[in-house]
Amino acid sequence: MFKTVGIVGVGLIGGSLSLSIKKKNLAERIFGFDISGKNIDKALSLGIIDEACDLDCISQAELVLISTPVSSIADYVIEVCRKGKAVVLDTGSVKKPIIDKVVEACGRSVNYIPMHPIAGTENFGPEAAFEGLFDGAFCIITPFEGVERSLIELASEFLTSLGMVVKIMDPSLHDEVFGYVSHLPHVIAYTLVNLIFGKPREFRFIGGGFRDYTRVAASSEFMWTDIFLMNKENVVKAIEEYIDELAFIKELIEKDDRTRLIEYLKMARVFKREIDG
Amino acid sequence: MFKTVGIVGVGLIGGSLSLSIKKKNLAERIFGFDISGKNIDKALSLGIIDEACDLDCISQAELVLISTPVSSIADYVIEVCRKGKAVVLDTGSVKKPIIDKVVEACGRSVNYIPMHPIAGTENFGPEAAFEGLFDGAFCIITPFEGVERSLIELASEFLTSLGMVVKIMDPSLHDEVFGYVSHLPHVIAYTLVNLIFGKPREFRFIGGGFRDYTRVAASSEFMWTDIFLMNKENVVKAIEEYIDELAFIKELIEKDDRTRLIEYLKMARVFKREIDG
Repeated sequence: MFKTVGIVGVGLIGGSLSLSIKKKNLAERIFGFDISGKNIDKALSLGIIDEACDLDCISQAELVLISTPVSSIADYVIEVCRKGKAVVLDTGSVKKPIIDKVVEACGRSVNYIPMHPIAGTENFGPEAAFEGLFDGAFCIITPFEGVERSLIELASEFLTSLGMVVKIMDPSLHDEVFGYVSHLPHVIAYTLVNLIFGKPREFRFIGGGFRDYTRVAASSEFMWTDIFLMNKENVVKAIEEYIDELAFIKELIEKDDRTRLIEYLKMARVFKREIDG
Repeated sequence: MFKTVGIVGVGLIGGSLSLSIKKKNLAERIFGFDISGKNIDKALSLGIIDEACDLDCISQAELVLISTPVSSIADYVIEVCRKGKAVVLDTGSVKKPIIDKVVEACGRSVNYIPMHPIAGTENFGPEAAFEGLFDGAFCIITPFEGVERSLIELASEFLTSLGMVVKIMDPSLHDEVFGYVSHLPHVIAYTLVNLIFGKPREFRFIGGGFRDYTRVAASSEFMWTDIFLMNKENVVKAIEEYIDELAFIKELIEKDDRTRLIEYLKMARVFKREIDG
């Protein structure tokens, strides 16, 4: 499909995308760039990328994927768009602030398609990358006003070829939704783990409920600090509403309101069944 | 080891214990009692118990395991102890209030050993029971003042034969610890699921972080209402401290305090590594 593809940020997401592109024969050659020389060496030795090169060279690829922490995505998109004619996609978990910065710098006719593949693990770095991470996963494209229809179609076709299910969503809505369904759950995991961490040793009995939560708390602190700060408004709103929800159940427990407590817990179980389909 | 064992409550926990006892040949015959006739029929047809019988008959067994919701455990322990000479163990997730009620009714020389096997799934009922649920799991014995040493030894030997790792803990400390590491995580799952449930359909994008949490929200609402209410004091305290923890991270995000946010998230990651050990 593409002669050359460039990957900026060869960690879990960029690396796994590269492996999928190779497996599905969607590029003749894959170039990689990473701010960390160690990551580039690993990505080369693991066969994730074919060649390491600088941003000048990356920008000459037909397609460039930016998979760095969200705080640096906009700068890379802008630089790559200025240096060459590549179609640029990014994989950030926050969309609106990145789009605004890119559009402000490059205008609305920029060759940029913002997207967010809904997949990942708590591990990070090139050694965490694996082919198949995105098989059957949703990938949300969040087009901005003025983006060319043909670019959306090209991106959709590419992502579908990678085995992903493409959805289109407004960028602001995306950031609000993921503030609740992804960023808030990470906040919850980090705070729960740290609450228990502050307790004496006897509290380190890890039952089923707690182990599930600790998984995401092992994610990269740099990546998640970036996400929480970039999506600040939505994350703060989600935390506030979540505190209200906790205060609500606390009141039911304090008041010994068995009937409403049973109803409340049942509602969650029914919803869980519903989303499991 | 035992000629006869009685199981009161043949659901996930009681049923799985019964299957393990059978597999390990620790009883010649297993009697079962359940308030639900449907559960008894299922337990019989699934080969979980050998025979259904009433509490009079159950009480003649050498060993009786009470695996009902926590609100009814004390009454069953008292009734079984009054009707026969069985050694009685229970599997409740809350210990102090049950012990207090039993000791008040039967005195400190009662043949009762309170315990809490740390295993379970979000499924419930006899059809959810499986042999192996307790393999390698911790089982906490929470002896009360005055309990005979020989009873603790008998229980320890039995649980070890079942493949569990026995720990001894003070009942009040147990309830506090599990208020934080098990009951609070369930509160968190239920409230998170219900917060998202109250949002429009677009919010039903389920990424990795959220799916982990919804698992425990599928647990029985009756069982968990009982646990939350019986361990009210500890659960309420845990929720309050957890709200403070959320308010703390919210402030770091609001203030754009990148340095302390990175430190805070890193602390959780390091702790997670430590407990995975």
